Amino acid sequence: MAGSSFGTLYRITTFGESHGEALGVIIDGMPSNISVDLEELHLELLRRAPGQHQVHTNRREDDRPRILSGVFEGKTLGTPICVIVENTNQRSGDYDKLKDSYRPGHADKTTMIKFGIRDHRGGGRASGRETLARVIGGYFAKKMLTSMSFYAYISQVGPYKIDKVISHGTPRGEINIPDENLTSEVVSFLKDCKVNGESAGGIVRLSITGVPAGLGEPVFDKLKADLAKAMLSIPACVGFSLGSGFAMASMKGSEVSSDSRHFGGMEGGISNGEEIILDLAFKAPSTIGEKAREGRHDPCILPRVIPVVEAMAAITLADQLLRQEAYHSFLTSNKDQ
Amino acid sequence: MAGSSFGTLYRITTFGESHGEALGVIIDGMPSNISVDLEELHLELLRRAPGQHQVHTNRREDDRPRILSGVFEGKTLGTPICVIVENTNQRSGDYDKLKDSYRPGHADKTTMIKFGIRDHRGGGRASGRETLARVIGGYFAKKMLTSMSFYAYISQVGPYKIDKVISHGTPRGEINIPDENLTSEVVSFLKDCKVNGESAGGIVRLSITGVPAGLGEPVFDKLKADLAKAMLSIPACVGFSLGSGFAMASMKGSEVSSDSRHFGGMEGGISNGEEIILDLAFKAPSTIGEKAREGRHDPCILPRVIPVVEAMAAITLADQLLRQEAYHSFLTSNKDQ
Amino acid sequence: MAGSSFGTLYRITTFGESHGEALGVIIDGMPSNISVDLEELHLELLRRAPGQHQVHTNRREDDRPRILSGVFEGKTLGTPICVIVENTNQRSGDYDKLKDSYRPGHADKTTMIKFGIRDHRGGGRASGRETLARVIGGYFAKKMLTSMSFYAYISQVGPYKIDKVISHGTPRGEINIPDENLTSEVVSFLKDCKVNGESAGGIVRLSITGVPAGLGEPVFDKLKADLAKAMLSIPACVGFSLGSGFAMASMKGSEVSSDSRHFGGMEGGISNGEEIILDLAFKAPSTIGEKAREGRHDPCILPRVIPVVEAMAAITLADQLLRQEAYHSFLTSNKDQ
Amino acid sequence: MAGSSFGTLYRITTFGESHGEALGVIIDGMPSNISVDLEELHLELLRRAPGQHQVHTNRREDDRPRILSGVFEGKTLGTPICVIVENTNQRSGDYDKLKDSYRPGHADKTTMIKFGIRDHRGGGRASGRETLARVIGGYFAKKMLTSMSFYAYISQVGPYKIDKVISHGTPRGEINIPDENLTSEVVSFLKDCKVNGESAGGIVRLSITGVPAGLGEPVFDKLKADLAKAMLSIPACVGFSLGSGFAMASMKGSEVSSDSRHFGGMEGGISNGEEIILDLAFKAPSTIGEKAREGRHDPCILPRVIPVVEAMAAITLADQLLRQEAYHSFLTSNKDQ
Repeated sequence: MAGSSFGTLYRITTFGESHGEALGVIIDGMPSNISVDLEELHLELLRRAPGQHQVHTNRREDDRPRILSGVFEGKTLGTPICVIVENTNQRSGDYDKLKDSYRPGHADKTTMIKFGIRDHRGGGRASGRETLARVIGGYFAKKMLTSMSFYAYISQVGPYKIDKVISHGTPRGEINIPDENLTSEVVSFLKDCKVNGESAGGIVRLSITGVPAGLGEPVFDKLKADLAKAMLSIPACVGFSLGSGFAMASMKGSEVSSDSRHFGGMEGGISNGEEIILDLAFKAPSTIGEKAREGRHDPCILPRVIPVVEAMAAITLADQLLRQEAYHSFLTSNKDQ
Repeated sequence: MAGSSFGTLYRITTFGESHGEALGVIIDGMPSNISVDLEELHLELLRRAPGQHQVHTNRREDDRPRILSGVFEGKTLGTPICVIVENTNQRSGDYDKLKDSYRPGHADKTTMIKFGIRDHRGGGRASGRETLARVIGGYFAKKMLTSMSFYAYISQVGPYKIDKVISHGTPRGEINIPDENLTSEVVSFLKDCKVNGESAGGIVRLSITGVPAGLGEPVFDKLKADLAKAMLSIPACVGFSLGSGFAMASMKGSEVSSDSRHFGGMEGGISNGEEIILDLAFKAPSTIGEKAREGRHDPCILPRVIPVVEAMAAITLADQLLRQEAYHSFLTSNKDQ
Repeated sequence: MAGSSFGTLYRITTFGESHGEALGVIIDGMPSNISVDLEELHLELLRRAPGQHQVHTNRREDDRPRILSGVFEGKTLGTPICVIVENTNQRSGDYDKLKDSYRPGHADKTTMIKFGIRDHRGGGRASGRETLARVIGGYFAKKMLTSMSFYAYISQVGPYKIDKVISHGTPRGEINIPDENLTSEVVSFLKDCKVNGESAGGIVRLSITGVPAGLGEPVFDKLKADLAKAMLSIPACVGFSLGSGFAMASMKGSEVSSDSRHFGGMEGGISNGEEIILDLAFKAPSTIGEKAREGRHDPCILPRVIPVVEAMAAITLADQLLRQEAYHSFLTSNKDQ
Repeated sequence: MAGSSFGTLYRITTFGESHGEALGVIIDGMPSNISVDLEELHLELLRRAPGQHQVHTNRREDDRPRILSGVFEGKTLGTPICVIVENTNQRSGDYDKLKDSYRPGHADKTTMIKFGIRDHRGGGRASGRETLARVIGGYFAKKMLTSMSFYAYISQVGPYKIDKVISHGTPRGEINIPDENLTSEVVSFLKDCKVNGESAGGIVRLSITGVPAGLGEPVFDKLKADLAKAMLSIPACVGFSLGSGFAMASMKGSEVSSDSRHFGGMEGGISNGEEIILDLAFKAPSTIGEKAREGRHDPCILPRVIPVVEAMAAITLADQLLRQEAYHSFLTSNKDQ
């Protein structure tokens, strides 16, 4: 039922079942007169496309976005931008046997309880495919956040972890792990998973730089709270932490205060101008065994979730930036009173 | 600026600086004809009151709630309920020296950047005292969620952890740790903290039972997303996880699927009727050193945050329940089509 | 900037410039399992299509709707429904000369001030063409409001008025005037307008029957307030009244109270179960003179606005019905306390 | 159930039954660092107080506002402002006989249907007394709208009308009619009403000057739509029109275009920088006969509704101004692209 919108001033509304006609997004609240580029948007979508790497599903999705509104002669009009992607490569026949079976760990059963009906050909709205619409929303958000830089990478897959600090912007390699050796190990591990009908979870780290101080509201709409909602709305995301996160449970106050990086770029839930650091845990996909060996599912979603994480962060910050900008003139003029 | 409301149908709006005249909450969307009791509400508030235990601040707050509207002859009217608590025991004089100093890790600096002004006598809206209003909102939410039970407890303080599974409802002891031996150790540890001008963080576990299947929306307003926002809006909360959370990063799909408890009571972000389990990390308070030794600050907020965690969960579920109830008649009648 | 959504639980979000690729709507919050029909929807759109009658613009729009999501095998899924209509028949060339000219009474100038850019090929979002999306939203709303009946008709065009009471459901004739003689006179009047480069305004009356008592909220979201917003959001609508409306300014209390029809189906802004009656004033189109004689503009929008008025009313009532339904179970069970 | 909030960025939430402990408002989204004054606010409230003139109810309300939060040392903090007014002068005993009787034209019956319970001592939330909270919200809104001026007056009571154009700012006299002769006639008429147990309706005209061009959103949140909702949310308001309103139904396009005042200060629903003109119809109070002769009810609410009309307009414009300001920096910088 309702619940397909995110944001107050920069608001995206997504639609589309994984095996329906098309899916897409409306971006309402985009500033006007900002140059955008269809090819650039297409490249952003390719970042989350399957079929690009051997560790992914064998499905190929050449998701060509089509801008239906809100852009004129290469510039935003300030009106709602609708972008759709047609579902051209869905082999519905494959899924017919799923009509009356609910896959554990998927939304099949809960969707049926909630709505009394579902499009059994796929995951419907709960499909990872829905995240395409978020990446589109993130593309436009980044276009208005010219001072900010979003950098997400995989810091853990199954037992493989990055232990060192990675500088923002380090090349992320073929599967979004900014470490060559670890990349090899993980590729090998995921190939094994695929062969064995297994799947793997992991952790994504997100760093955001260039965020001005003062974003986020003092109570419920704290920046950390809105980011937490944004991230937990991503399928398979099961954990969120800010700065040193769960590790801070064991730290004394003197230790926490010794390095402002522990705070992750916020104080009182409001950005303090420093680097924002988030960690996000994702569970292993629930499709395992025979079904997984068929090859149309990812053994691990983390490589492809990276642009989605960046997009949701950009959308959240675009919204909070506009909310703060609303008071810009007042803040400036009232200082002199 | 705006951002003091939480929820769509069951919506709370809070107000009040820690050292202002009063603080309080408006609860809009409460069902009518539900019996409520001022004494019961007062007891709920006492659960988060300081000054009850030697490990807490020496400040005493006898927070007597006053219901200004929405209740008539002991029953809710269905109209907005406003409850206020007067700030009677604020010794503003103590805080005057803080006028031009920003405490690290607090919202002092970010508030000043954001608003260009602040009530320097205390933490303003970022004060833990604001959470009083949330506990009031949670009291009413629980009154309408008669099938559900909320049970939060401390599972870790600094280096002290609970390793066993705690049954929902186990007595929580004097500082909300449901283990007598650990309680003694933590009390001793926190007394030392207080003496040494130190502070401690920890982890809260929340279990919710009796949640009907089908709550939560498929995309952005997933139940896990709304709960994440609710929890990260609590001061000092720096981490959120669902079910087995960050531990799932290392688990293979077969392991995750072996026990539905790993999912934490949701599939596809929608409640599946099983127990909901959340873990929440809190950082140590930033007030340390000489200031902490003065005794008007908690060395650890976890004992007092327990009712706040339960309240925010209840508010979130009340909202999602009403959102689902809106379709109840349709679901029932359309099944027969 | 944002502002393209309407409704809380039943929420439509529209997009599309009049001369862009396509326009459409997302309907979020539609109940599941409701049968819908593409042909039926197409017929509803034809009700507002131009080119059907000699008093209209010469432009022809064969607006074929395409359902992209939210419907599966003829039934709603409960997920967001996206419907688009491609803009196939826009002769952009005709409009190039308008690039630097602002038409008085149109949104050209205010759009430019607001956004600093506009799609000069047409009215953009302010075009009457945007109302297509509303009619689509209304089609689905009516599908869930099976007890209600919406009946709008023209009660005045320029100097021609209907003085008698029209029964809900009376045939409305070729231009939505439920009186044959008046229809002839108005057709003749509008032909003259067209020839003379003139345009005409008028009044629409809307009657809604079958509305259950209890819809609307007591304070800001009164049913009359939400309906007023819905109607004034329609282009060219300049007046709204409920029941006997402005005529009540001259009536004494005894007169008002003598017949409950004066109240228009609400008391305290909440539906009382009786017929809801609204009057809506529309101004004459601002395109006059040489431009109007070219024939691509309607001399009077009232005949085509009828389905738009009904649609906006249905959308408003769908939203208020769901908001009230959210409390249905509570109301029923609490009565017994 | 929910519905007690108005606005997106400048949002007021009101609470309080007419005969409960207190009523009040939370203003969330007020800019910081703006000087406000309790005495000035008190004077604004007195503008709508009864008992000031012989044509009013005999009840006296000395409504002393109390600011609980959001203001520090005479300046706004940018945090939610809560202002309450205690209900000190309610003689509940008078109303006990109303417990089981529903007054026609009042919200008694619809409230009972909607909620299954009501505070029978008065009108509850539907009471005119709720408008106190709106006037408080309007006071703060006006404080941030320094360029704008709001001027409402009575243009009609029963058969008595103002036929000439009244300049914005003309003194409004003792009952808000800016014409001395008409004032005498209306006072006499209303005294007769009171004696005869009758009541009267009328029309309020609102003029707003100093509104910058560009406020209002293109589609649903048009400025005229938000103002219509604001006004129709006022008790007894049954009609709204913009500019020449219903009179435009009879005007040809050439006539409408001949004078931009007909448009009432908007084009395409967006402010064009000219004077905004609204007309609002109010019905006669439903309390008539013996009950009315007792003297605790106004025979006509128009004199007291004037500050409420201005307040709702100011709240609407404050919200739309902030929404537009959110894009201010973008508009300025993107112009140079």
